[in-house]
Amino acid sequence: MTSERSIILKPIGIVRTEALGDEVKDKKHLSEIVIDCELTPALEGITEFSHIFVLFWLSEISVEQQQMMKVHPRGRRDLPLLGVFATRTNLRPNPIGLTLVELVKVEGNVLTVRGLDAYDGTPVLDVKPFDFWDTAKDARVPKWWLKLEEEKKHNA
Amino acid sequence: MTSERSIILKPIGIVRTEALGDEVKDKKHLSEIVIDCELTPALEGITEFSHIFVLFWLSEISVEQQQMMKVHPRGRRDLPLLGVFATRTNLRPNPIGLTLVELVKVEGNVLTVRGLDAYDGTPVLDVKPFDFWDTAKDARVPKWWLKLEEEKKHNA
Repeated sequence: MTSERSIILKPIGIVRTEALGDEVKDKKHLSEIVIDCELTPALEGITEFSHIFVLFWLSEISVEQQQMMKVHPRGRRDLPLLGVFATRTNLRPNPIGLTLVELVKVEGNVLTVRGLDAYDGTPVLDVKPFDFWDTAKDARVPKWWLKLEEEKKHNA
Repeated sequence: MTSERSIILKPIGIVRTEALGDEVKDKKHLSEIVIDCELTPALEGITEFSHIFVLFWLSEISVEQQQMMKVHPRGRRDLPLLGVFATRTNLRPNPIGLTLVELVKVEGNVLTVRGLDAYDGTPVLDVKPFDFWDTAKDARVPKWWLKLEEEKKHNA
C-alpha cells in the first residue's frame, strides 16, 4: 500500500436534468450545472471555451461496488472481462465521472451543457475548460470499443 | 449552498518521477504511476489503449489557495484576470489534476506514461482510458490561450 491518506472533497455544485435512466446517455440532451452561489466569480471567462470537462461524483455507487476489480464493458458478457481501469465503468475505487460537454450558455451560477451523462442531483466536483492538449489525434482504442460504437451507429 | 456533503477519496497509487520543478511540464518526460498492489487486477486490458487520463490530487495546494476565485493564467499579469474554472490552474476548490498522457508500458502494478505534469509523490485518484468521445474537433478556445501556445512554440 503506497497511499494510506484520505482526501476530502466538497462538491462545487449539482447537476439538474429532467432526463431519466438511459436518457442521460443521449449526447444531445441538455443539463444544467448549478454551481454554489459563492463560487460564481470563479466562472468568469469560461464562456470563451466551447467545451468543458465536468468531473462529478457517482454518488449511487456503493462501497462494495467501489471494490470491484473487473467488469464486462457495459455489462456485455460477449465482450472481454477487463480491469475497471481499462474501461469507463462507474464501478471504480474512486467513482469520479469525467465527461466532455458542450458549454451552451452561462447565466449567473448556472451552466447549461449538452451531453452530460449524469443523473439529476449528481454532485459536481470540478469543471475545467477543454483545450488542444486534451486530445490525442493518433490514439489507439481496443477492438471491443470500436465494436460497441459500430453497434451504436446501427441502432441510432 | 446546494451541496453540503463531503466526499472521501482514497488514492489508488502514487506518481514517481525524477523530474523536478518545471521539468514535469515537459510533455516528453516519462513518469511512473505505481498503483497499489491490491488493485493490479483492475489494470487488465489497459494496454490496449494508447492514451489514458490521469486524475491526481494536487496535494501541495493549501486550504487558502483552494478558496481563490480568480487568477491570471500561469500568473501572467498581462493576461486577463479570470475565474479559476475558466483556467486549468491548480488553485481551485477541489484541486484535482487532469492530464491526458501516452501509456508507454505496463509492468505489474507500474504504468510508465509520457507527459504527466505531476510531481514525485503526487497521489493518483483514477486512471481512465481515452476514447474518441473525449475530444471535440470543433472546439473554440480563448485568444489568451492561443497566445500562450504561440509563445511556447517560439521559446521551444
